[in-house]
Amino acid sequence: MRAAISLGHRGQGISHPNPNVGAIIVKDNIIIGRGYTMAGGRPHAEAMALAQAGEAAKGATLYSTLEPCTHESPRGPNCCSLIINSGIKRLICGAVDPDYRMRGKGLERLSQHDIEIISPILEDESRASMAGFLSQQEKGRPFITLKLAMSIDGAIARDNGQSKWITGDAARRHVHALRARHDAILIGAGTFRADAPALDVRLMGLHDRAPRKIIMGKNAPDGWGHICAPNDVNLLPDNWLLLEGGGECAASFLQNDLVDRIMIYRAPIIMGSRQLSIGDMGLSDLADAHGRWRMAGQYMLGNDRLEIYDRMAEHLV
Amino acid sequence: MRAAISLGHRGQGISHPNPNVGAIIVKDNIIIGRGYTMAGGRPHAEAMALAQAGEAAKGATLYSTLEPCTHESPRGPNCCSLIINSGIKRLICGAVDPDYRMRGKGLERLSQHDIEIISPILEDESRASMAGFLSQQEKGRPFITLKLAMSIDGAIARDNGQSKWITGDAARRHVHALRARHDAILIGAGTFRADAPALDVRLMGLHDRAPRKIIMGKNAPDGWGHICAPNDVNLLPDNWLLLEGGGECAASFLQNDLVDRIMIYRAPIIMGSRQLSIGDMGLSDLADAHGRWRMAGQYMLGNDRLEIYDRMAEHLV
Repeated sequence: MRAAISLGHRGQGISHPNPNVGAIIVKDNIIIGRGYTMAGGRPHAEAMALAQAGEAAKGATLYSTLEPCTHESPRGPNCCSLIINSGIKRLICGAVDPDYRMRGKGLERLSQHDIEIISPILEDESRASMAGFLSQQEKGRPFITLKLAMSIDGAIARDNGQSKWITGDAARRHVHALRARHDAILIGAGTFRADAPALDVRLMGLHDRAPRKIIMGKNAPDGWGHICAPNDVNLLPDNWLLLEGGGECAASFLQNDLVDRIMIYRAPIIMGSRQLSIGDMGLSDLADAHGRWRMAGQYMLGNDRLEIYDRMAEHLV
Repeated sequence: MRAAISLGHRGQGISHPNPNVGAIIVKDNIIIGRGYTMAGGRPHAEAMALAQAGEAAKGATLYSTLEPCTHESPRGPNCCSLIINSGIKRLICGAVDPDYRMRGKGLERLSQHDIEIISPILEDESRASMAGFLSQQEKGRPFITLKLAMSIDGAIARDNGQSKWITGDAARRHVHALRARHDAILIGAGTFRADAPALDVRLMGLHDRAPRKIIMGKNAPDGWGHICAPNDVNLLPDNWLLLEGGGECAASFLQNDLVDRIMIYRAPIIMGSRQLSIGDMGLSDLADAHGRWRMAGQYMLGNDRLEIYDRMAEHLV
């Protein structure tokens, strides 16, 4: 299942509007098929893995991070039909699909066709890997990641605005890979006016993975989407939304409890600047700041450190 | 030698004006004596270890983090004499003593008495463990550690000044243990006026380890030492100086390149405050901020993380 989850990550930022499912088919301890949901949502992970396995799928075990679809679509046969026809004898499933047309119907149908179902397996990890799709299904908005590059002392620019460069090459490349795994990037109007950032993906082979660009403000430049306020994120169809740039923009999302993950790229430098990473967010008591975030991981990127904080479960909407 | 270094740490913050040396005597693979420089500098580590070993020291090996003293003192016999009289046959030494009366003279004298000398061993680690004394000898000022408790976004208080509490119990206890290992604590006059902090050591058994208190300002309250500006640290006799509290005070020391170590107690909270950890330090270009600090270690303390940054070697005075 971990291998399937890892495959599913490949579809992150491209599988929209579908979930970035990962699937693996195993027979006699050998992997005979791998799949992940491709650009635009087709083919599905299970269909791709089954196509790869071909006749060998008969009697094999399918691992899928999400319940296979069983509802009809004009875009192709549903995965349950493909699985039944393939002769797969067992399904190991990561999580049930919360789509209103699913919610266990897929597992039930497969079970009626004498396919053994083991579910859920690694449910938390499976759900985390498809958090964008699940957020849309369950909260009606994208999974929102706030990205900040800052110094030890929390500055994101010098007082004169200079912010090139706080972090080093490895961290900046990591940010570009992060963009490639998001459907959309949002910045504040102030950051747009100050920097007009390209927000592209400058990595070999990933130039076509630039997310669509969204501005928070009254008007949108050509080619950009826009929303007026943080709560408008429920208008966005994207699964994965990345917040980049703008301490005030970051503060307004945090204040509205609309951030699911914070990724800090922290350089080992001291800046002593008044250009803050997070603007005033109306905190009325220090006690209210506690219990919201847990460190989910950290990695060295050259001299810089990536710190990942996830919203704590009790604060999940 | 690592065991001797570890012993030496016990004298940190009490051995002043002497170095916090650690010593171990080994015979037939058994440790027969342990010592570290005690409060006020007497007894010396070697003397304590030799007293513990007694007659058994004959033919044994002595590990000492620093070259044993050979100059006469009204406070007792020098360590070289004690070592020669004990019958120790071998000395493993961490580092040469830079005191103008020493600089290898101790090792030379022991060698003339047919004691085998192996030196230096683990020199960097030995020197780091006595960095306060060595800083006084080599730079004429204490080893200076800047301690800051802050949020993810680098705030040390809310806009209204509230800073109780950013970090949790484990981190706060760690700070008290840190104080116990320093000879003196310095704060800015502004912090004194705002908080009048006790700066004591509220840990069982360590209440008598409170460092002397120093203020940076024009006047000193009763019982406090004072200096007027960061560069006056060369007037301080202390080996280990801890900077606590005051973003402006921190900035002025950093600006004068007078900080050797930064210890950040970082809580997993977002504050969105204008109360900065580090005030304006006159940084003229972002490039100048790089290459000064390397992460020397990090530890979880409850939900908080301690980040230790050491001044990079090329920036050592």
